[in-house]
Amino acid sequence: MKIAIAQLNYHIGDFEGNLQKMLEATQMAKDTAADIVVFGELAVTGYPPRDFLEFDDFIEKSLEVVARLAKAAIDIAIVVGAPSRNPVVEGKDLFNSAYFLADGTIQQVEHKALLPTYDIFDEYRYFEPASSFEVVHYKGKKIALTVCEDIWNVGNENPLYTICPLDELKEQDPDFILNLSASPFNFNHANNRIHVLKANVELYGKPMFYVNHVGAQTEIIFDGGSIVMSPDGMVHDELPYFEACIRTYELSNVLNGGIHQEQKKDKMDLIHDALITGIKDYFGKLGLKKAILGLSGGIDSAVVAVLAQRALGAENVRVLLMPSQFSSDHSVNDARQLAKNLNIQYDIIHIQEAYTAYENMLKPHFTATKFDVTEENIQARIRGMLLMSMSNKFGNIVLNTSNKSEAAVGYGTLYGDMAGGLSVIADVYKTEVFALARFMNKDAEVIPMNTITKPPSAELRPDQIDADSLPDYEILDAILYQYIEKRQGPKELIAQGFDKKLVARVLKMVNRNEFKRAQVAPVLRVSSKAFGMGRRIPIVGKYLN
Amino acid sequence: MKIAIAQLNYHIGDFEGNLQKMLEATQMAKDTAADIVVFGELAVTGYPPRDFLEFDDFIEKSLEVVARLAKAAIDIAIVVGAPSRNPVVEGKDLFNSAYFLADGTIQQVEHKALLPTYDIFDEYRYFEPASSFEVVHYKGKKIALTVCEDIWNVGNENPLYTICPLDELKEQDPDFILNLSASPFNFNHANNRIHVLKANVELYGKPMFYVNHVGAQTEIIFDGGSIVMSPDGMVHDELPYFEACIRTYELSNVLNGGIHQEQKKDKMDLIHDALITGIKDYFGKLGLKKAILGLSGGIDSAVVAVLAQRALGAENVRVLLMPSQFSSDHSVNDARQLAKNLNIQYDIIHIQEAYTAYENMLKPHFTATKFDVTEENIQARIRGMLLMSMSNKFGNIVLNTSNKSEAAVGYGTLYGDMAGGLSVIADVYKTEVFALARFMNKDAEVIPMNTITKPPSAELRPDQIDADSLPDYEILDAILYQYIEKRQGPKELIAQGFDKKLVARVLKMVNRNEFKRAQVAPVLRVSSKAFGMGRRIPIVGKYLN
Repeated sequence: MKIAIAQLNYHIGDFEGNLQKMLEATQMAKDTAADIVVFGELAVTGYPPRDFLEFDDFIEKSLEVVARLAKAAIDIAIVVGAPSRNPVVEGKDLFNSAYFLADGTIQQVEHKALLPTYDIFDEYRYFEPASSFEVVHYKGKKIALTVCEDIWNVGNENPLYTICPLDELKEQDPDFILNLSASPFNFNHANNRIHVLKANVELYGKPMFYVNHVGAQTEIIFDGGSIVMSPDGMVHDELPYFEACIRTYELSNVLNGGIHQEQKKDKMDLIHDALITGIKDYFGKLGLKKAILGLSGGIDSAVVAVLAQRALGAENVRVLLMPSQFSSDHSVNDARQLAKNLNIQYDIIHIQEAYTAYENMLKPHFTATKFDVTEENIQARIRGMLLMSMSNKFGNIVLNTSNKSEAAVGYGTLYGDMAGGLSVIADVYKTEVFALARFMNKDAEVIPMNTITKPPSAELRPDQIDADSLPDYEILDAILYQYIEKRQGPKELIAQGFDKKLVARVLKMVNRNEFKRAQVAPVLRVSSKAFGMGRRIPIVGKYLN
Repeated sequence: MKIAIAQLNYHIGDFEGNLQKMLEATQMAKDTAADIVVFGELAVTGYPPRDFLEFDDFIEKSLEVVARLAKAAIDIAIVVGAPSRNPVVEGKDLFNSAYFLADGTIQQVEHKALLPTYDIFDEYRYFEPASSFEVVHYKGKKIALTVCEDIWNVGNENPLYTICPLDELKEQDPDFILNLSASPFNFNHANNRIHVLKANVELYGKPMFYVNHVGAQTEIIFDGGSIVMSPDGMVHDELPYFEACIRTYELSNVLNGGIHQEQKKDKMDLIHDALITGIKDYFGKLGLKKAILGLSGGIDSAVVAVLAQRALGAENVRVLLMPSQFSSDHSVNDARQLAKNLNIQYDIIHIQEAYTAYENMLKPHFTATKFDVTEENIQARIRGMLLMSMSNKFGNIVLNTSNKSEAAVGYGTLYGDMAGGLSVIADVYKTEVFALARFMNKDAEVIPMNTITKPPSAELRPDQIDADSLPDYEILDAILYQYIEKRQGPKELIAQGFDKKLVARVLKMVNRNEFKRAQVAPVLRVSSKAFGMGRRIPIVGKYLN
């Protein structure tokens, strides 16, 4: 028996587009004489469809696509993820299902039992969990259908669920396991995925075909990396990262045991490619082409400019250099050099005239006050205004260049440097931004070395550097990582050796700045805990602040 | 037996503050010779604690408060909501529990079974559902403990859950039912609540004591309205809306049958008081006092100014009048008159100088372009800048004045009129804003009549009125309500008689503007479906757009 797995880039709600991609892939699978082609979880709707699932019209459209796909299941079986209606009045109205299509019709529909409801996942918001499990009989084989999280309760010290669907399915002695996934990228995910698959294969002794999505949906990035695992727990094959791909496998070969076909999983390599995918699909799926950003001469905007140029092409990226009286010469020079290296359009607009206008307009109201954060913010907001004006006039979407460290502690100006349609690196800590810049320069100096080596500064008042207001980034990022990704509280952080006062100060900064993060553009997610939909903290919460 | 119910205003994460309030209420209950005092769901942590629940330190602090509260349970029993740890390794780590405290210790802990995971609710994100149910035996009575949603699967055509905890508990023949709730306000909720309580009481034949929270937590507002219902399904008593309150009831009186003690539930009255509560608690719980907003002479900012003045006091509200070349005289006059009526500080800042500065700065880049939405947005963003600058300098928080209709269709400028720390009326449709303005004027003309009667206009280009770009608000709001609150799709809307092209146009505007709404301040929720955490739509979704 030959099994084809199709790792595709779906688009949420684009029923016709998703269908056409799957029909093409089905034809390609047929051309390899495959008996079955397998697509991802909720492939018909794209993942995550979120509250679109609450619209009956949306479900109808999805069911129509499943019906049309079923018609194409001639001389091949198709396994595809889509919602199905729960016929029982009690419980949620939908299941998250795997459809088995063959002989031109829907043969069997199995439902997901383990509904991830944590981080970015909200599945119990929409779906009723499966309560019964049946293998599919096809061409003399028994196939266990599972959907994504269904296999993730294994290989895990603190399982989130009280059951494992494969415990039920193994009683029916399946020949192999299919897993339809939509499993989002983070820089550790490819390793975790293999660990979980191994744990399942070791426990159940059956080969597994794990099919993931590829591409990005707003902030969520799918890396692909679909896996075929032999019963000996070896990776028989791993599909490429960040690329659509279809491959066909002869079951007997997979049963014979694994060829170790894993790819390299270097953190910066993965983050780099993930962010490019994120930008490319945000623009592509919204029907946009052109980006704009402010280039300060600092490292954050430099890294975002490189990513944008690599994602969208030099001809689709333009930058503004917007010096003030506080900007150093080297900043403008570094920014200009970078723009030249990237071969992107740059324009220089001095912000002084607008700054003076605001000074005059506010003077009668600001009597007897001193230069403070207000005037710093005015500079940042003039820059936001200029970028947004170019955006409104020419259709270039503004890329936000805030990094995760500053987003965490609120070191940024709302409607100023925090403006933009997409937050490209707000899930990348400052120390990681440096590493990413060095990674980008590995073959040639794209980002001027001075940008990487000089001390970070916002340049909003004379001789300002970040170190005046913030702890050393090495220490800051270490605390932030423990607090944000690892949910370690003050007690645990102090036990880890961090200074008590510093811990209290940093946690307070993080918690007091929820209101700012509530107003930023979607953050491309590359870690296991990004700001945005996957991290939900009350703004008025009086905790550690 | 005497039962006291305490409807209090908790603050998320303010363990000491919440404890002190409950200790005071316990003493007050004792003073009325109550045998039991009942607090709300998750009263110890405040509701909703959201991802704070993922911090072990947060849970520890909550458990400490429960232990301290237990020590106060002398000569009185205390029933209080707080998280408890799940001792079983499989499943979620926490339960959403009702603690029964008596004789200075924790006597019994019962868990919530039905975990709302829809709209603003994310409870399955954190909690394992209860799988067993035991009444509490106390002073010869049997008490059924339920937590909020546990009673909401009854009286409902399409129940969300497959079980009802009271079906299990009734076999143990309880004498009465306690329900610890944190049930957020919307303008229909007080009626729904009574309907659901009646359905339960009719089904189970037992009296019910339903205890709600009062006060606001960021966008979520609790109206109180706690209820004591007699076994005949009559409201024995209903506690006030939007006020903390403790009352004690003799069980035998409640059993004797209902006195119908319901309050009036006028929509505008409720929305008015809810929004004032929302503003008051947003400021109060963040330790803030002063607000600022831009007064345009239009109805939205007028209504927000009145609400702010009533919530925070005239001395804590100031407004800016920021006319441009396109502002009509009557706008400035109407705004000034309103500020005088409200006795709040107003300042006038003409925006021309900044506008000219931007014109000059952008001229070299805008050659051969025409006045378009760019220049309109520049005006709106200058106003945003001026408000934020006053905010930064003097600590007044900017109130956003967008209404729900314009937020829905994207008729607003990001970082301009969409700026601010709290979106006060972004869950109130334009037609409701008019009704609210008239309601505010019921005793005296606070809002100048001209503000209410003139055609709405953004005044960003000559002779502009909303009706140039948007359908009539009566029709627009009717479509938006069906689409947003009722999740009706194009087919259903057309069947309701709305014009096909108009429906397509409106739904497209709504769906294409998710990116804007993703960047606005929290929206005070007064309807059953507000923008924000309770409505989750993919930005890159290709659906109806």
